[in-house]
Amino acid sequence: MESTMIRRLISALFLLLLITVGSSTPTTHWRKRVREPCNKLVFYFHDIIYNGHNAKNATSAIVGAPSWGNKTILAGQNHFGDVVVFDDPITLDNNLHSAPVGRAQGFYIYDKKEIFTSWLGFSFVFNSTEHKGSINFAGADPLMNKTRDISVIGGTGDFFMTRGVATLSTDAFEGEVYFRLRVDINLFECW
Amino acid sequence: MESTMIRRLISALFLLLLITVGSSTPTTHWRKRVREPCNKLVFYFHDIIYNGHNAKNATSAIVGAPSWGNKTILAGQNHFGDVVVFDDPITLDNNLHSAPVGRAQGFYIYDKKEIFTSWLGFSFVFNSTEHKGSINFAGADPLMNKTRDISVIGGTGDFFMTRGVATLSTDAFEGEVYFRLRVDINLFECW
Amino acid sequence: MESTMIRRLISALFLLLLITVGSSTPTTHWRKRVREPCNKLVFYFHDIIYNGHNAKNATSAIVGAPSWGNKTILAGQNHFGDVVVFDDPITLDNNLHSAPVGRAQGFYIYDKKEIFTSWLGFSFVFNSTEHKGSINFAGADPLMNKTRDISVIGGTGDFFMTRGVATLSTDAFEGEVYFRLRVDINLFECW
Repeated sequence: MESTMIRRLISALFLLLLITVGSSTPTTHWRKRVREPCNKLVFYFHDIIYNGHNAKNATSAIVGAPSWGNKTILAGQNHFGDVVVFDDPITLDNNLHSAPVGRAQGFYIYDKKEIFTSWLGFSFVFNSTEHKGSINFAGADPLMNKTRDISVIGGTGDFFMTRGVATLSTDAFEGEVYFRLRVDINLFECW
Repeated sequence: MESTMIRRLISALFLLLLITVGSSTPTTHWRKRVREPCNKLVFYFHDIIYNGHNAKNATSAIVGAPSWGNKTILAGQNHFGDVVVFDDPITLDNNLHSAPVGRAQGFYIYDKKEIFTSWLGFSFVFNSTEHKGSINFAGADPLMNKTRDISVIGGTGDFFMTRGVATLSTDAFEGEVYFRLRVDINLFECW
Repeated sequence: MESTMIRRLISALFLLLLITVGSSTPTTHWRKRVREPCNKLVFYFHDIIYNGHNAKNATSAIVGAPSWGNKTILAGQNHFGDVVVFDDPITLDNNLHSAPVGRAQGFYIYDKKEIFTSWLGFSFVFNSTEHKGSINFAGADPLMNKTRDISVIGGTGDFFMTRGVATLSTDAFEGEVYFRLRVDINLFECW
């Protein structure tokens, strides 16, 4: 009888060994991680560039330009070299006049002569009952593509230490004064 | 007697099972992580803006401005659109004349018409016996708030691969030429 | 004989305990992680600054300058305050005329009066059979040093969510018009 118990014990030991090996995380750091977002958010933001005549409504302004440019008209050569600073309203839908839920603040630069392409560094700043804190972004925006991905490089407050990818798409544009971006934020690190 | 040992063995097995289950990390990646810093640092840095008359002492300069601005006076409308490049001394206390322990290098832009708000991209660069390496920062700085959080987006050398949050507070300012920021750095990823 | 088996079982239990404790990851987050790259890449990129006479070949342009500078000549005082936007070809070897495998897009600023030092925010943008996606960089570049480290702050596509360190070295420069950087990218987080 005791011999039977010992056999059971040995079985239990092997089972335990399997569980142990299966459940413990490997210490190597380059394993493939699960690509499932821990948080998904969708916003729109609206950019109205100052053109010398719209001081009241403008949310952005040209502050750097190449030698062939100026500060009230986006430069030739696909705006190459223009630096734009912005403080744009963020809305939940695609309506410029919806109540803003935060501000998109930072800068973009047009950085290619042959086609429209930009580079963005900015934050979403929230201070509402819904969200408090900020999400920080950086990356290349080849804006002629239907969608393009930039990095979420950090966050504070409700978005403490977050990382992820944001997919930009141009939802609308009117001449060279107004554009609206849709931002699909997928966070893959949430603390 | 052997029966007793077997009972002890069974107890040991259960204990081991508990330890095993308790200590193994779940493989899901969206668990709440411990919000306890792995490193805490406090520094001050000092910014003296070039105003046309202080070339010798200035540590920063306006290099981009909106159409209504210029390069020696911060622009109207809460400096909206001014781009400032800086190389500021970092000190351990709030004294501008203390021996610098590193340099804060990068840029800030004023990005809102209605109130003072800026966006920062910069590094702390250390090369002393105390610290070697750099800490990289990015984020929105709504500078009228007593404290505001930006992201530590990376690091090199002693701060290899670090991430965290830095809390900025304006420790002093004199007109539009000098300001001093206190930076409380809390690192949550240390390699 | 059964007594022997029980002794063996006890040995097995202790061995198992050791394995368990050894293999399970601690839940604390400030453990030292393995500093072994999960991906290593080497590229070169080539920067030709617009100087008023090379519109056709130029890949970058001065777009911000201090009050003592202009947009076609890098400023005095070690170019302090110059802001340069670039769209540079990336090659696998050090030959400017090799087929580019991607584009380095973003900006750099010269940020120190006393010596050449810059701050970089840019992306490597790939769209070839080899690589699709982008790698985002930020950091201080004390360019008189033989090598200097900046941060890989994120990535998209093939480089989804990556982080790491990139080591820059100046591979060549010709006057103030052309320079070539070698970039050794070491990624320590790969998804």
